[in-house]
Amino acid sequence: MNKLYIIKIGGNVLDDPAALTKFLQDFSTIREPKILIHGGGKLATKLGEQLGIQARMVKGRRITDAATLDLVTMVYGGLVNKQLVARLQHLGCNALGVTGADGNMIRAVKRPVKDVDYGYVGDITPADVNSALLYFLLKQNVVPVFASLTHASGMMLNTNADTIASVLAIALSKHFDVRLIFCFEKKGVMRDVQDESSVIRLLYETTYKELLEQGSFADGILPKLENAFAAIHAGVKEVLIGDATHLLHNTGQETEGTLIIK
Amino acid sequence: MNKLYIIKIGGNVLDDPAALTKFLQDFSTIREPKILIHGGGKLATKLGEQLGIQARMVKGRRITDAATLDLVTMVYGGLVNKQLVARLQHLGCNALGVTGADGNMIRAVKRPVKDVDYGYVGDITPADVNSALLYFLLKQNVVPVFASLTHASGMMLNTNADTIASVLAIALSKHFDVRLIFCFEKKGVMRDVQDESSVIRLLYETTYKELLEQGSFADGILPKLENAFAAIHAGVKEVLIGDATHLLHNTGQETEGTLIIK
Repeated sequence: MNKLYIIKIGGNVLDDPAALTKFLQDFSTIREPKILIHGGGKLATKLGEQLGIQARMVKGRRITDAATLDLVTMVYGGLVNKQLVARLQHLGCNALGVTGADGNMIRAVKRPVKDVDYGYVGDITPADVNSALLYFLLKQNVVPVFASLTHASGMMLNTNADTIASVLAIALSKHFDVRLIFCFEKKGVMRDVQDESSVIRLLYETTYKELLEQGSFADGILPKLENAFAAIHAGVKEVLIGDATHLLHNTGQETEGTLIIK
Repeated sequence: MNKLYIIKIGGNVLDDPAALTKFLQDFSTIREPKILIHGGGKLATKLGEQLGIQARMVKGRRITDAATLDLVTMVYGGLVNKQLVARLQHLGCNALGVTGADGNMIRAVKRPVKDVDYGYVGDITPADVNSALLYFLLKQNVVPVFASLTHASGMMLNTNADTIASVLAIALSKHFDVRLIFCFEKKGVMRDVQDESSVIRLLYETTYKELLEQGSFADGILPKLENAFAAIHAGVKEVLIGDATHLLHNTGQETEGTLIIK
């Protein structure tokens, strides 16, 4: 099977012009089929403040009300997505910006209200991915660039970008040897959050479970690791977690960051 | 050749919830391949006011400065485009929202500065259309929904939606019998602007030139007519101009609005 890179960039890359420029250059040099996934970074928060849309948090999680949904649809699906696409096109990469609504690429279910009403948030599974159209676009050397939005029943929905990346990776692992890459602000998964030099280069599930029991991981990394192992179990070849500016350089043997394998 | 509908909707349809709902229902019932083109309606102006972005006009024409470019990229390319796509998906129409940057569908040239600097505005010709990718998507029953934006040199550019519609129509007339439809606020091209009953049902070029010499047309309709005749001369089968709520009903024999033929 052919290799497919699925790469998710975090807000820290979007918010840093130099890091973003370097990332886009590195990304456009990958010769294999590839997909990029992004959220919106600080731009959505900043624009929300200007428009008087306040971030509503319940139990530490952001609620997507109607005004916030419009905001993220504009910023993630419009401004950020189209700026990335235009820049990648200029670098010779045939980017095509989409959300889960476009071409029905990712259908969602609006999250059911239990103890918390998260608002316009979409839950997704690998079965919700229109992999036929994606496969078809990838074969035409088109590079899909996903904003972290999905849809259901005629409405856009806000969906976690890490989840979109792993769901796409699992769905497309039928057609490709998928290498899923999560770029975030750290150099990788660390044994000791205070110590940048403690990056775990190769993380097996046994080690992961041991460290999990010891409570070694920072909160921020946990959902990424859950997504990573879910992907590995569902057919994704490998998952790489680390700092965007170093990850893509060594897509060959010498891997930086944390490589997760079964 | 197969028929292809290329339909441009104006702000008056976007700004009227009932008209938009009816339009989307009618549009989704067209069985032939189809493309939708839209701008942003009053939403961009309203949001611009909230953000303190003032519309700059020179000689009656809007200037797209950097702030305005971001605004239209968000509103046209993000909010309006994705809301239309989600609603069409719900109506069973496999819409895929794009700008000219996505898949390099429409390259542009930033308008050269002569006596006026229009800012981030893209000029386009039919040769700038990536008709191979569009043809390919249409064959997959995908319905492209274009926001009125193009790109050049890594930047998004603002481009007139009527012009995008006619340039797409001309480029795709090699592959399809194109029926180009401009929806606007009037029932059609009128002999007498004051008299709604004076709609010209069939407008030949000879009549157009006579009426043009007599100065019979309202200012707003002139660019549409120029685009329409340019399209007809360049291979487009027919152009229909009229009111969105009536145009799509009778896509068969009994045409409402003004039909323009060579």
